[in-house]
Amino acid sequence: MSQGTVRPWLRRFEDVGEFYLSTEVVVCGYGGAGASAALEARRAGADVLVLERASGGGGATAMSSCEMYLGGSGGTAIHKALGIEDSTENMIAYITECFGPHGDPEKIRLYAEGAAAHFDWAESLGVPYKREVLLERTVVPFTDESLLFTGNERAHPFNKIAEPVPRGHVPSKEGDEGGKIFMQALMAKVEAEGSIIQTDARVVAVLQDSDGRVRGVAAKIDGEEKYLEASHGVILTAGGFVMNRSMIERHAAHVIPFGEPYGNQWDLGDGIQMGMAAGGNAINMNECFLSFAFYPPAKLTYGILVNGHGQRFINEDAYLARLGHYAGLQDNHEIYLLVQNEDFELSHYMENLRIAGTGDSIAEAETEAGLPPGSLQATVAYYNKYASRGEDPLFHKTEQWLKPIDKPPYALVSYCPQEVKYPLGEKPGYLMFTLGGLETLPTGEVLTAQGDVIPGLYAAGRTSAGLPRTAKGYASGMSVGDATFFGRKAGQQAAASGDDT
Amino acid sequence: MSQGTVRPWLRRFEDVGEFYLSTEVVVCGYGGAGASAALEARRAGADVLVLERASGGGGATAMSSCEMYLGGSGGTAIHKALGIEDSTENMIAYITECFGPHGDPEKIRLYAEGAAAHFDWAESLGVPYKREVLLERTVVPFTDESLLFTGNERAHPFNKIAEPVPRGHVPSKEGDEGGKIFMQALMAKVEAEGSIIQTDARVVAVLQDSDGRVRGVAAKIDGEEKYLEASHGVILTAGGFVMNRSMIERHAAHVIPFGEPYGNQWDLGDGIQMGMAAGGNAINMNECFLSFAFYPPAKLTYGILVNGHGQRFINEDAYLARLGHYAGLQDNHEIYLLVQNEDFELSHYMENLRIAGTGDSIAEAETEAGLPPGSLQATVAYYNKYASRGEDPLFHKTEQWLKPIDKPPYALVSYCPQEVKYPLGEKPGYLMFTLGGLETLPTGEVLTAQGDVIPGLYAAGRTSAGLPRTAKGYASGMSVGDATFFGRKAGQQAAASGDDT
Repeated sequence: MSQGTVRPWLRRFEDVGEFYLSTEVVVCGYGGAGASAALEARRAGADVLVLERASGGGGATAMSSCEMYLGGSGGTAIHKALGIEDSTENMIAYITECFGPHGDPEKIRLYAEGAAAHFDWAESLGVPYKREVLLERTVVPFTDESLLFTGNERAHPFNKIAEPVPRGHVPSKEGDEGGKIFMQALMAKVEAEGSIIQTDARVVAVLQDSDGRVRGVAAKIDGEEKYLEASHGVILTAGGFVMNRSMIERHAAHVIPFGEPYGNQWDLGDGIQMGMAAGGNAINMNECFLSFAFYPPAKLTYGILVNGHGQRFINEDAYLARLGHYAGLQDNHEIYLLVQNEDFELSHYMENLRIAGTGDSIAEAETEAGLPPGSLQATVAYYNKYASRGEDPLFHKTEQWLKPIDKPPYALVSYCPQEVKYPLGEKPGYLMFTLGGLETLPTGEVLTAQGDVIPGLYAAGRTSAGLPRTAKGYASGMSVGDATFFGRKAGQQAAASGDDT
Repeated sequence: MSQGTVRPWLRRFEDVGEFYLSTEVVVCGYGGAGASAALEARRAGADVLVLERASGGGGATAMSSCEMYLGGSGGTAIHKALGIEDSTENMIAYITECFGPHGDPEKIRLYAEGAAAHFDWAESLGVPYKREVLLERTVVPFTDESLLFTGNERAHPFNKIAEPVPRGHVPSKEGDEGGKIFMQALMAKVEAEGSIIQTDARVVAVLQDSDGRVRGVAAKIDGEEKYLEASHGVILTAGGFVMNRSMIERHAAHVIPFGEPYGNQWDLGDGIQMGMAAGGNAINMNECFLSFAFYPPAKLTYGILVNGHGQRFINEDAYLARLGHYAGLQDNHEIYLLVQNEDFELSHYMENLRIAGTGDSIAEAETEAGLPPGSLQATVAYYNKYASRGEDPLFHKTEQWLKPIDKPPYALVSYCPQEVKYPLGEKPGYLMFTLGGLETLPTGEVLTAQGDVIPGLYAAGRTSAGLPRTAKGYASGMSVGDATFFGRKAGQQAAASGDDT
């Protein structure tokens, strides 16, 4: 065992003989949350060391489109340029509905109050944003607009609760390279402003003193365990745990049959486990983002989604993560899209699609797909009767996407997760990543199960349980938005706190 | 702060000045798991001290019917007397299907292998069991039979996977007093055989030494914090956390809108939190038992359950916890039972029932209940068509419960959890208790998130994540069965382990 080992991920500070380096703030993980924390800690006057396990920074944020979910305060600079209005209360009402009892009201409010200013910060890094909006139903723009809808704002029941506003802000570039553009700009600032970056450094433990204060970390650097002192604080920004199969089995076993891990290869839960070893409480650990992006093309939304009982189960105009949540709840995860010829096209994001049934009548397609006899016919008869009047009494799909399914031929496309494949993923299943982590205050301070702050310990990004709490209410941009926004808060707080023992 | 306080629930062993008492095994909590652990530790030769927060023992087990889910090995003594056969592999197949990816294969196997002998142990305590079986669809016998079906054995899909065997074993007595009878018998043995019992003693922390070994506890006794040394081990059997609102909010927020905490008032998660403070991993924390006992009377099973979209969602002959799981998944937790006059009677276990709609036609009842127009009519038309042939192509309710719903008048009974009340509960909602806790080996040894054993620390019952993992697959008797069975194992292991430092 190494010096002062109490248990895995934890060492006794007093037992450390020699420090490799002493600084004020140590940031563990150089993705979106860590880089934001480092920048702000440094700007607040602290000496900052960033440790990164990989050979370079970026984390999962660099792999993403870098959508950020922003609005409130009358609107961001993009909203204002385009004449789109958004109020802080409207944004709060929306996010509150998104996560229900899982949401953290304090984080939601603070985020909504600061989101428009956070856009200005992101732009000030040198990230290009274009004052143009893409209003079609899609996932990311392949053109160069910087604003789009990335959640359920226009869909039932959210459209009854808050005024729909597009809040997905994405760097402007044709293609899907937002994450790279953003992280390059952010890391350039971090480094220019004097944080020290140590890559190929795996943090293996936090150092906690006999009063419970976290005072540094142990890290494997050049094959050796070295001790790094942090007089002001340690910030854990090491991602989630989606790549840790054993943690998924323990905490989110329900997603195993239909989820495919999507993230950075180092999303192994190290930060969460270190925080827990120091007494931190991990919460929301069973909740995952899930992606069922059967669109684009948007016209597939004219179809209806049915489960293995031939029943509809959701308004098809919902956002990809809400669809993923509901699809995951259906018996045997059996999901089909019924679509008539004029709306048929293959999904852009899902491959290996199997046509489970086709026919010149619904009955034929139903039989070929092996759905219970008459079940799909009853579902379609009911749907068509009301769709022809622009109504969907069962699930309230918006009128824009309602029309009878009565022009053969018909296809039933299987989206059973065991069969579909995402170009981004390796194995079949809906893309997923974890939404559970250390419980923190909005300042990033890590809490014990009793609600006490662990002095000197901070977390942000998917190492923490942040703004996004469920796939059911997720909007794209809530994770990168949260990671960078609350990463900044953690950096500011750690720099300001100093060593008050 | 008290002596050696590292953080709440944890003290440093080396800092303790004076021990109030030194013994070999300390058991924290005197319910079913704790009493079983104490008895077996003592029988294995250890000196045992039991600490109980309440003024007397019993825990949640004493409040229950004390059903135990037992079988395998050719059958228990009751099975054999009645000529009912059960194999260990049949029992394993059933329980494995119950919990899917959430199940612990090692615990399932060990339990199934030892369950028939566990019945003999229970009977040897002096608990009366009658060799008679009650085969009707019910929850607990109000007559004096000791064997009944308490899970989904006879229902789809379980009836396709394992041979249905009744495995609920309950003390024989008219009325529902099994828990009292069992705990009185068990506690009498524990005390007769020499364990020391200290009631009104709240354990507030475990004592851990600098090598990570747990060596005792701190407890509030007579208003003072006292230190108790345990040379062989500490066994945490302090129940689950259903009465801890803050833990429910953090770990199982989804049940808040429809669950009503059901358990012992001291099910506050103390044991789980102490285990976590000592480095233990808590798993399965979002899963809860949920009870939607719309039956008995069994004849209500001839009705159909529909959600707020007027759709069926489950085979109505499923067991109460599986019904609770699925009911909780429906949008807005909106649940109705459609029943025709000849099958109508009020549920025995659920009060405050509101008749949401009645009518001489389905259409009338549907309209009165405010279901989407035509939705229930379509559901019933489909159901009746196949029910008249003894088929249920959508959900596979067994033929026994299938008949057309075509004899008016009809009633739609609301089982929306916000409206129903259980005689056992205080507030509206489905009865619930927690199924998450410390991760343990089958021996009761508590594991860290890295899978390492914490020397000297054991857990059983709802303080641990045991056999029952989800409401979806729960059978009554799995919790008391697990608590007593694995409580015994923990007692044996702690007694045998000694102090090996």
